[in-house]
Amino acid sequence: MDFPITRVKGGVGAPKGFLTSAAVCGIKNPDAPRPDLALIHSEHPCTSAGTFTTNRVKAAPVRVTQGHLRRGELRAIVANAGNANACTGVQGVRDAHAMCDAVARPLGLKRAEVGVCSTGVIGLPMPMARIGPGLDELPAGLARGRGGEVAEAIMTSDTRAKELAFSFDLGGTRARIGGCVKGSGMICPSMATMLCFITTDAGITPECLRKSVLECVEESFNRITIDGDMSTNDTVLVLANGASGMSPVRRNGKRCRQFREALGHLMLELAKAIVRDGERVTRFVTVRVEGAKTYLDAKKTAEAVCKSALVKSSWNGGDPNWGRIIHAVGYSRARVREELIDIHIGGKPACIGGLQADTPMDELRAAVAGPEFDITIDLNQGGAGYTMYSSDLSPEYVDFNRSEYAYWKQARRDGLV
Amino acid sequence: MDFPITRVKGGVGAPKGFLTSAAVCGIKNPDAPRPDLALIHSEHPCTSAGTFTTNRVKAAPVRVTQGHLRRGELRAIVANAGNANACTGVQGVRDAHAMCDAVARPLGLKRAEVGVCSTGVIGLPMPMARIGPGLDELPAGLARGRGGEVAEAIMTSDTRAKELAFSFDLGGTRARIGGCVKGSGMICPSMATMLCFITTDAGITPECLRKSVLECVEESFNRITIDGDMSTNDTVLVLANGASGMSPVRRNGKRCRQFREALGHLMLELAKAIVRDGERVTRFVTVRVEGAKTYLDAKKTAEAVCKSALVKSSWNGGDPNWGRIIHAVGYSRARVREELIDIHIGGKPACIGGLQADTPMDELRAAVAGPEFDITIDLNQGGAGYTMYSSDLSPEYVDFNRSEYAYWKQARRDGLV
Repeated sequence: MDFPITRVKGGVGAPKGFLTSAAVCGIKNPDAPRPDLALIHSEHPCTSAGTFTTNRVKAAPVRVTQGHLRRGELRAIVANAGNANACTGVQGVRDAHAMCDAVARPLGLKRAEVGVCSTGVIGLPMPMARIGPGLDELPAGLARGRGGEVAEAIMTSDTRAKELAFSFDLGGTRARIGGCVKGSGMICPSMATMLCFITTDAGITPECLRKSVLECVEESFNRITIDGDMSTNDTVLVLANGASGMSPVRRNGKRCRQFREALGHLMLELAKAIVRDGERVTRFVTVRVEGAKTYLDAKKTAEAVCKSALVKSSWNGGDPNWGRIIHAVGYSRARVREELIDIHIGGKPACIGGLQADTPMDELRAAVAGPEFDITIDLNQGGAGYTMYSSDLSPEYVDFNRSEYAYWKQARRDGLV
Repeated sequence: MDFPITRVKGGVGAPKGFLTSAAVCGIKNPDAPRPDLALIHSEHPCTSAGTFTTNRVKAAPVRVTQGHLRRGELRAIVANAGNANACTGVQGVRDAHAMCDAVARPLGLKRAEVGVCSTGVIGLPMPMARIGPGLDELPAGLARGRGGEVAEAIMTSDTRAKELAFSFDLGGTRARIGGCVKGSGMICPSMATMLCFITTDAGITPECLRKSVLECVEESFNRITIDGDMSTNDTVLVLANGASGMSPVRRNGKRCRQFREALGHLMLELAKAIVRDGERVTRFVTVRVEGAKTYLDAKKTAEAVCKSALVKSSWNGGDPNWGRIIHAVGYSRARVREELIDIHIGGKPACIGGLQADTPMDELRAAVAGPEFDITIDLNQGGAGYTMYSSDLSPEYVDFNRSEYAYWKQARRDGLV
């Protein structure tokens, strides 16, 4: 870190001038009601930027928010969990608009100043009858310092609310940046079923913010994978309201680099938190590829290893099986030469020059026994590298996702079958 | 089928002039010895052709057999299970040569007339001290009509030996074609950890055989996936010895089309047998993509659906979750339009025009309750199609593959750790 940033309490509610509220609508599960609808609102106009899933099947709220973000003036975000509003056609777009309108009106905003996000089951209509009353409650409930409500409301299969905030000095003025994420399954680079909302009271020009967001997402949320499935609803939204009182940070200056560093640090920590809370995950594995001919070769290598069902199963079993790692490197379509490949597991040589290293097996087993370890793959062919953050694959993950609960039970509950 | 082919008993031993033998070396598991070394030998010179893994990390026997096959004169195949002889460097190549030489000498063949294949654990040296005595036994044990020994000897995590043979009429002469396969995990298109040996007593020119093999592999073994992991050892070898007495089948004639049809039928049935015997598989699913703009769009769509951990988990649970299918279609990188996509599950409409169809959920659940069903995805954008054969993903698959047995226990047994 070039310049000091300090951890502070809270998440999206930590920066000045951001209010939040949440409601319980029974979208997730009416039998055990939990918060499932949330609102973030800035008291001041904002600069905003974001990134979205590259899935060609995009949920209605993604399409709507992409349109709203084009003007870069989002000032509020409304989000629900339990239903993804995906594959819902024209009615889905109407419902997404209705969610924006319901909060825009009492807050005196235009529809295009509201971002809308949904996460949950794909292919079922939004239960607007249950969401309506919650939407009506939200604006009146807005309060300071309660960003944790948002982190909690957007959870689906997440086991814990994930939020984080920092304060840092930008050209003599103190600024804060905070964020929350949800995401646990359907997690894959570019990008995952994940929602990430970030707020900051730094003042920043649209150009500097957009560029920083693109670069930081590339190095954080696009570097994680749990199950290799890319969602229809992924959204990262960043709102900067300038409430700290600084003059706007411009592109290419020292302050822009510093802001980017703070944003990058926050995004990376939030991205890692998603992997650590992945569905039935027991291992957090950092895969570093080095010595690749090109960036793309390094990326392909890391992705193949991080997505291999066999490699991930061996991690679950605490098996330092480098043979499975090198076999995935081989089919990655990266340009590699078997006889040059070195693999280190937890810092211990497991494979040198494509052959078994002489590290005692007990040492290798000890290296993968803990909940977090590193794998380094040196292709010894050049100077390019790529790092990804991945998890194991557990029998419990499959067991969890084989359950028909998500679709069938919810459809029955909604009286659709 | 344009012309009649008849199922006959046996596998690689069914065609005239092919002899087989097998031995027990204790490579797989010395505590519970099973056949793990096998030999196929043709009494007559052969035309031969084959395909190999496209993994850049190739096992020593793959490199050696690729070289031998260049002359197209293979007359024998020696194969072992239990150790893949992969990532074994120069010594691995020496061991593969030694395996060829050990059977070539007593049979009066040149080394280049012998193909060698290995399957099993990656990264451990071949236990040649245990394999040597078995190699010595093989030539003396050669016999007719015992091809099942080969199918059994090459099994690793397979639960059953897989072999099949047909007879058919080619321009008035009766010919036979038989084959066996192994493969259960590390199964992915182009190509899987699979070995396939096919013998025929049809007479055929090298050009017709090579072309037929390439085309038939593309439509069979390259269309299956179990876990999406491509092996270092995949090999398909086809030997034609002309013992049926016909004049050689030439390229582009009617007989070549007929031979190709018989070969294609055999390969497809053997490929499907691999999926049905996939590691801890409970469902065999045929995924048909139709209406794609191009062949490549259709292929990408089918591959994304067949490799999705979430889709495969839902199949395991008997969940007709079309939302997960369409989300995989969306991230496949195929050119698709959400609002045009129709999905049928077991012949029942599940999604029409990107929206939930009105088939009662009970009917959809019944459609995926059995051990085999079809998914049809119509992109409604053109005339191209692609079909793949896939399986579910079960908690038991992960549990099986998390076991450290394969590498660690074997290494300890071999006195390597």
